[in-house]
Amino acid sequence: MISFASDNYASALPEVLSALTEANVGHAKAYGDDPITAEAIALIQKELNTTAPVYFVATGTAANTLTLKTMVKDFESIICADSAHINIQEAGAPAHLTGSKIQTTPNIEGKLTPEGIRQLYTGETFWGRHSTLPRAVSIAQTTEFGTVYTLDELAAIRTVCDELNLYLHIDGARLFNAAAALNCSLADIAQYADILCLGGTKAGLMFGEAIIFINHTLGKNFDRRQKLGLQLMSKTRYVSAQFKALMADGLGLKAAAHANALAQRLWKGLEDSGLATAAFPIESNQLFVQLPEKVIAPLQEAYPFYTFDPGQNLVRLITSHDNTEEDVDNLLELFNTLTNQ
Amino acid sequence: MISFASDNYASALPEVLSALTEANVGHAKAYGDDPITAEAIALIQKELNTTAPVYFVATGTAANTLTLKTMVKDFESIICADSAHINIQEAGAPAHLTGSKIQTTPNIEGKLTPEGIRQLYTGETFWGRHSTLPRAVSIAQTTEFGTVYTLDELAAIRTVCDELNLYLHIDGARLFNAAAALNCSLADIAQYADILCLGGTKAGLMFGEAIIFINHTLGKNFDRRQKLGLQLMSKTRYVSAQFKALMADGLGLKAAAHANALAQRLWKGLEDSGLATAAFPIESNQLFVQLPEKVIAPLQEAYPFYTFDPGQNLVRLITSHDNTEEDVDNLLELFNTLTNQ
Amino acid sequence: MISFASDNYASALPEVLSALTEANVGHAKAYGDDPITAEAIALIQKELNTTAPVYFVATGTAANTLTLKTMVKDFESIICADSAHINIQEAGAPAHLTGSKIQTTPNIEGKLTPEGIRQLYTGETFWGRHSTLPRAVSIAQTTEFGTVYTLDELAAIRTVCDELNLYLHIDGARLFNAAAALNCSLADIAQYADILCLGGTKAGLMFGEAIIFINHTLGKNFDRRQKLGLQLMSKTRYVSAQFKALMADGLGLKAAAHANALAQRLWKGLEDSGLATAAFPIESNQLFVQLPEKVIAPLQEAYPFYTFDPGQNLVRLITSHDNTEEDVDNLLELFNTLTNQ
Amino acid sequence: MISFASDNYASALPEVLSALTEANVGHAKAYGDDPITAEAIALIQKELNTTAPVYFVATGTAANTLTLKTMVKDFESIICADSAHINIQEAGAPAHLTGSKIQTTPNIEGKLTPEGIRQLYTGETFWGRHSTLPRAVSIAQTTEFGTVYTLDELAAIRTVCDELNLYLHIDGARLFNAAAALNCSLADIAQYADILCLGGTKAGLMFGEAIIFINHTLGKNFDRRQKLGLQLMSKTRYVSAQFKALMADGLGLKAAAHANALAQRLWKGLEDSGLATAAFPIESNQLFVQLPEKVIAPLQEAYPFYTFDPGQNLVRLITSHDNTEEDVDNLLELFNTLTNQ
Repeated sequence: MISFASDNYASALPEVLSALTEANVGHAKAYGDDPITAEAIALIQKELNTTAPVYFVATGTAANTLTLKTMVKDFESIICADSAHINIQEAGAPAHLTGSKIQTTPNIEGKLTPEGIRQLYTGETFWGRHSTLPRAVSIAQTTEFGTVYTLDELAAIRTVCDELNLYLHIDGARLFNAAAALNCSLADIAQYADILCLGGTKAGLMFGEAIIFINHTLGKNFDRRQKLGLQLMSKTRYVSAQFKALMADGLGLKAAAHANALAQRLWKGLEDSGLATAAFPIESNQLFVQLPEKVIAPLQEAYPFYTFDPGQNLVRLITSHDNTEEDVDNLLELFNTLTNQ
Repeated sequence: MISFASDNYASALPEVLSALTEANVGHAKAYGDDPITAEAIALIQKELNTTAPVYFVATGTAANTLTLKTMVKDFESIICADSAHINIQEAGAPAHLTGSKIQTTPNIEGKLTPEGIRQLYTGETFWGRHSTLPRAVSIAQTTEFGTVYTLDELAAIRTVCDELNLYLHIDGARLFNAAAALNCSLADIAQYADILCLGGTKAGLMFGEAIIFINHTLGKNFDRRQKLGLQLMSKTRYVSAQFKALMADGLGLKAAAHANALAQRLWKGLEDSGLATAAFPIESNQLFVQLPEKVIAPLQEAYPFYTFDPGQNLVRLITSHDNTEEDVDNLLELFNTLTNQ
Repeated sequence: MISFASDNYASALPEVLSALTEANVGHAKAYGDDPITAEAIALIQKELNTTAPVYFVATGTAANTLTLKTMVKDFESIICADSAHINIQEAGAPAHLTGSKIQTTPNIEGKLTPEGIRQLYTGETFWGRHSTLPRAVSIAQTTEFGTVYTLDELAAIRTVCDELNLYLHIDGARLFNAAAALNCSLADIAQYADILCLGGTKAGLMFGEAIIFINHTLGKNFDRRQKLGLQLMSKTRYVSAQFKALMADGLGLKAAAHANALAQRLWKGLEDSGLATAAFPIESNQLFVQLPEKVIAPLQEAYPFYTFDPGQNLVRLITSHDNTEEDVDNLLELFNTLTNQ
Repeated sequence: MISFASDNYASALPEVLSALTEANVGHAKAYGDDPITAEAIALIQKELNTTAPVYFVATGTAANTLTLKTMVKDFESIICADSAHINIQEAGAPAHLTGSKIQTTPNIEGKLTPEGIRQLYTGETFWGRHSTLPRAVSIAQTTEFGTVYTLDELAAIRTVCDELNLYLHIDGARLFNAAAALNCSLADIAQYADILCLGGTKAGLMFGEAIIFINHTLGKNFDRRQKLGLQLMSKTRYVSAQFKALMADGLGLKAAAHANALAQRLWKGLEDSGLATAAFPIESNQLFVQLPEKVIAPLQEAYPFYTFDPGQNLVRLITSHDNTEEDVDNLLELFNTLTNQ
């Protein structure tokens, strides 16, 4: 299947498969005490310019939930945009497993702003012990709508967090796409976070997310919480090997840059038609666009993608590392044919 | 490394790696809506002679915890042997995430008995609302000590469960080894369970456990609980493909029979020396044996394994699918050399 | 102290104190198995025209939280107005202890509307297993802003709940005030609820709230959940005795009607001044009014009350069973003096 | 009713009722910000020779559960005797609401020993991250069986706690009885605890337990946890007033000494008959005794009490502050009549 549905529909990078083959030799210590895991961690630390503790988990929801849990006590709360993945699309897991309230404020093009944080904080603390104590801020880079926080925007959020004694959590399910979009290093973004969740699955792994405790203290005893949180994989070498491949030779960044470029190519084609409207700036590998109603169904049938707001003819198109320029051009050709009918 | 430390130290079966390569083509629907997942589920259902709902999760602790959660409400409790993995080695996750009390009774060679269940039930219900209401029984097949419940023993436990209105949960992290030991089918064992957790990782996968809701009702809405429990992997095809390989052509059973045979070979060699004592009957791929103190450290250095009760010189040796007769014979040769020094 | 701060600042009704004295004779069975508890329950059931199970707990937050817990499973969610007590002023307890997400929609004069419920339901279920399944609706009667749902409005909410398979929870911390305002019986309101939390503390008890499982099924095993939820008081007779007094001879309704009448008297006096603006219709015993800035501080010093939105000069004045017409007139006199200075 | 069933069956002390009457005047600040609460706290602090933060909650299970929650993180566990109230008779609340595992060891006459603590600690930490990290020890003074830790025994437990980095929690549901038995002050016992739960209900209140954070740090933000734990009573003055009465003029200690003396009188009478056997040393106000089978039912009918192990004719007799010497003598007279028949 060729689709623009999600980077979750995409296959794994060939280098990842090779790495698994290479790792599949003989016995190795379980639970991350093997040499491949050590190598993968070292590569991540080097790329992020940090000596922070690094752990691997199976899913993005797991990464977000278990790390938020290290930031908040039961009576403390988490601030995020109303559009945040942790608020909408994780089945309530972050609130359920932290036991903490998630405070939301309307997003601005998918983003949380320093003003939004400040307002939520003031409103919630007004009630004293009858309400919760905000303690963490969570943002996604890239956002749910494919927009990308600039480094200045990140710095401004960090400043308000420091002022209000709030930890900063970055959900980096698509961090490679963000870094490629900003033409910066992962470290340039990571420096602002207390905890960074670095997505592997959407970047081209079979599965696997890395957790980096930039703020080392929060990582204390995380090995126990990883087990308690159902995320201590016994044969850890098979997730580490994938990350090792992704971090070597800038593979992750290259793959993300390719996907981002396809998104621009796709948007240019749609824009040129004069029949598509972008709901958000197209800055990474996600396009939220309004299309003529009549083309949506036949286009979806040929190249599956998601419809977001049927009444508004709003669709989401995602480009992945394994999509090609040809895929994009074929989609555009069909789009033009359909609109001309 | 060649070891007898754990089937978690073992590599993945070659067929599993081939299956991953085969699955890595183009886009596929995420979250288990892909054709490979459908095929893997069908193979499991066929082997278990059931139409039960089947789900895949990343770890054994996840499989046990999330399924126990479908059996008990917050005021209800779970009965198991004191030696149970869910009681000792899962970092408290089953109690933590179900919110339910785990009641234990002393094991008999790793097993829970109908009498033990009955006693715990009577003792706990004596206090009425001031205590908990037992609602589930959890057993492991094979047990923590490598012993295997006979089908008659399973039937007797099922009977007491029915009588006391208790669900029966089978932790089958090593179910293939049990079936191979009993020379029966997986279905012969599964018929007694309300929920069966079928281990893939220790059977030769890179990772992955299957959950089978023999009692269909308990599986209602499990897709939501799977997400909430951090176990809904987006690219599910990569775990399904592994299970598909394991279930095809009896691969899992063959690999387990091989490991079991190596355990017998190993035990025969040790027993012949007259210097080893088995702490439990050796019925599957685990040996708990007392060895002469002086041989333990040098043996461990050559072929890593775990020491269980240092004061008692009790060690655990596990044979895996990728150990060979030669590995066993080399270990025995070293053992004999060391004991003769 | 004479205040208009809260019905939580108020004393207990004299009849309540007499009832405690009367109950304090000899030994009585613990945990609610005593005759006074039976009498209190019978009186509540009679007044509500139901045979529903009734339980007593210590606080309103406890009543709301533990009853919501009987309505939702971990993957299910609760719908309420953004202004709801369970959302804002209970320190996150309902979400924390149910483990369920609380979905909010903007209130209309403190109320939740059928349209609001429908929109939240549709929005949340759009994401399937990636989001939560709405299962309960919670409303407060009277609302946080002192407004009162008409019986027609309650019927309309009940209808949408039935249609969408949602339970209806009524937080009746001030239900006596609502019934007095509507000039109806408690039963007229209770008929729409699956669970009704009937407030005693704000109605004139020292402490104590009653829980009534209009939908009997939800009350199954609640005695165990009451204990687990830290709310099974051993000497239950001392809360039952208070409720017995409150239900006898319409005491609760009379006390609430008195408080409501004082609120009207207070509002009339403020309105006549031409210097006060009501933020919400004044329908029960709460006034949210904007007052001239200069009078607020001196008025508060003489008769404590809460300031809600300092920038807007918005204050909340609550009349209680133990306030008198003289108290109100004295406040008004001071108000007029201050405004004339 | 006259009974020997429980100090939960007992009435409230007359001084407590007077205190409630006295407190019931006018409005007072809610949630503990009133002057009566300040006075009650000062009295407790003085008696315990501490400046520790003090809070009031409604039930003993609440006191134990919420304070244990301040001691342990989710991956940490609690050590107690198998007979502990927190393990057996609190419906699983301590484990449920802390999310932590409760580790038990066989009791020695109701007591936990330093050796028992050490063994549990060593056994649990053997498994590293696969198991839990013991962090708190909980003991009850008096114990479930009415025995009393000597000050030396408490000191020895404190020493092992310090050595193993464990907090010490004392469940003092019957602490007044313990102090009366040891002829020491409450402070003499409290000095060993990190947190002391001081029981009011069994000591003669209508309801109410005090929590004292001897280790001040653990009390940080407890006001928020109290609300989150459903235990922030709005009209706190009505529980504080009761405690104020109990602490004034040594009322609590006198009442407990009276109950203890009755227990000795009762035991002497039974022992003299030559027909009763004490299952545990009788050191406070609880007797666990084996009686001739034929007398149990008729004795229970006249003076209700609990049967503990029917097959063993083991019963529990509790003396309360409102039992009299005459009550005891009447029971003994009936006992002698029945045994002579």
